[in-house]
Amino acid sequence: MALRPTFRPEQIDIVVRFIQDFFRQAGKELAVVGMSGGLDSSVTAYLCVRALGPDRVRALFLKDELSSKEDERDVEALAKALGITMETVNITPMVEAFREAMVIDDQKALGNVRARCRMIAWYTVSNMQDALVVGTGNKSEVLIGFFSKFGDAGVDLLPMGDLYKTQVREMARHLGVPEKVIDKVPSPGLWRGQTDEGELGISYDDLDRILLGLELEMKPQEVSDRTGLSLEQVLHVEEMIRRSIHKRKTPLIPKVGVRTVGLDWRE
Amino acid sequence: MALRPTFRPEQIDIVVRFIQDFFRQAGKELAVVGMSGGLDSSVTAYLCVRALGPDRVRALFLKDELSSKEDERDVEALAKALGITMETVNITPMVEAFREAMVIDDQKALGNVRARCRMIAWYTVSNMQDALVVGTGNKSEVLIGFFSKFGDAGVDLLPMGDLYKTQVREMARHLGVPEKVIDKVPSPGLWRGQTDEGELGISYDDLDRILLGLELEMKPQEVSDRTGLSLEQVLHVEEMIRRSIHKRKTPLIPKVGVRTVGLDWRE
Repeated sequence: MALRPTFRPEQIDIVVRFIQDFFRQAGKELAVVGMSGGLDSSVTAYLCVRALGPDRVRALFLKDELSSKEDERDVEALAKALGITMETVNITPMVEAFREAMVIDDQKALGNVRARCRMIAWYTVSNMQDALVVGTGNKSEVLIGFFSKFGDAGVDLLPMGDLYKTQVREMARHLGVPEKVIDKVPSPGLWRGQTDEGELGISYDDLDRILLGLELEMKPQEVSDRTGLSLEQVLHVEEMIRRSIHKRKTPLIPKVGVRTVGLDWRE
Repeated sequence: MALRPTFRPEQIDIVVRFIQDFFRQAGKELAVVGMSGGLDSSVTAYLCVRALGPDRVRALFLKDELSSKEDERDVEALAKALGITMETVNITPMVEAFREAMVIDDQKALGNVRARCRMIAWYTVSNMQDALVVGTGNKSEVLIGFFSKFGDAGVDLLPMGDLYKTQVREMARHLGVPEKVIDKVPSPGLWRGQTDEGELGISYDDLDRILLGLELEMKPQEVSDRTGLSLEQVLHVEEMIRRSIHKRKTPLIPKVGVRTVGLDWRE
């Protein structure tokens, strides 16, 4: 049997029920989804609409000097098809204010500023409308740490956090997301020319097969044998997982008292 | 015996060793500490200097239209006494850019923007100098959720996260923090006139006694009996703990795969 994450339609039901339960327990009505016109955020919006209905979902498109007019039109078309309200905010002034005040000449540092300014915009809408911010990250990104701490990872819930990118792509087809959106080259949009696969140096297809092997607790050599990918690639992915552990945890606290938050304070 | 958190000098050693171990394991040299001139951030800076030495600690003072010239002078004096480098950034342009673009008329929403802009500034310095951001929060704040998600809580480690505010105050005296700083009225500085105790409706002295009772798994009535505080106050604190659970956890992910981040993905 091929080592490859598989999509099953019942995964949609699991995620939809999760969203419904989460909002019910939090006592919140509205969901804010940051939509970029890309695959992950489009699927997230479709899932939220299926779970909550279109009246309870707000799309937020954050444009800047890197986003294209086409992305904006794609989000407009998606919002119209889903029957949800869309709001557009230009975050260039905020990013520029940081760049000027702090003399940021480092591409990665400025990219993180951009991701974190988006987070602030989502939460501002969420605070003013008593909503929750729904994250769009998937399991592939989360596991290798391909996200900005307190940026795109700064959300209230992560419905697709246990679905690999290749599963999200198949889910998109089942949900009726337009092929044009599904076929876009994935990019976090943090600097010009950035693409996920270019930066990672591996395709999502290969990455997901390696991640699944490691999830199933195979040894690196076995993952290599089963996927036909090099041992070096497998070890590189394992290293990305290891190096990003801190991004998947709350800030560490040293134990001093009887019960410590994050360690043994039960809740 | 009085129900009251106690400070013991060896708690300083625990926290100092934690900071040293954390930086060693992360392979990082520099610590960034956002200093406001208040108690918590001053104690954090003292602890970092004790753990790492003054050359490895950077103070970042984020001034805005709410901060006073006196706060800035206090941070300057503390940095000088500690022998650490201090950088000042005015975050008013960033906060104003959000306020204008998003028409924020809600005090709390704007306060969160402010807290989150501070986080971005810390991480910008941290990214450009390959450092870690050291949080200044204490156990009292963490347990009742008195912080901004992805704002002041957006840090890499939280050395005082298991010390109650009243313990931090005693620790400050042991560390030689100036009395003037220790005696300041605590405030997050998110809007004009805001004070911790005013907003919480309870003094830290009372709050910490209730929190300790709950930490020791006493029933609310027992906490009330042991502290002489009303049952209503105890239940109010318990409710603040319950309502802020989501602020102490990473975003929830529904289980779909074999091993799920945040649930059973071991690392």
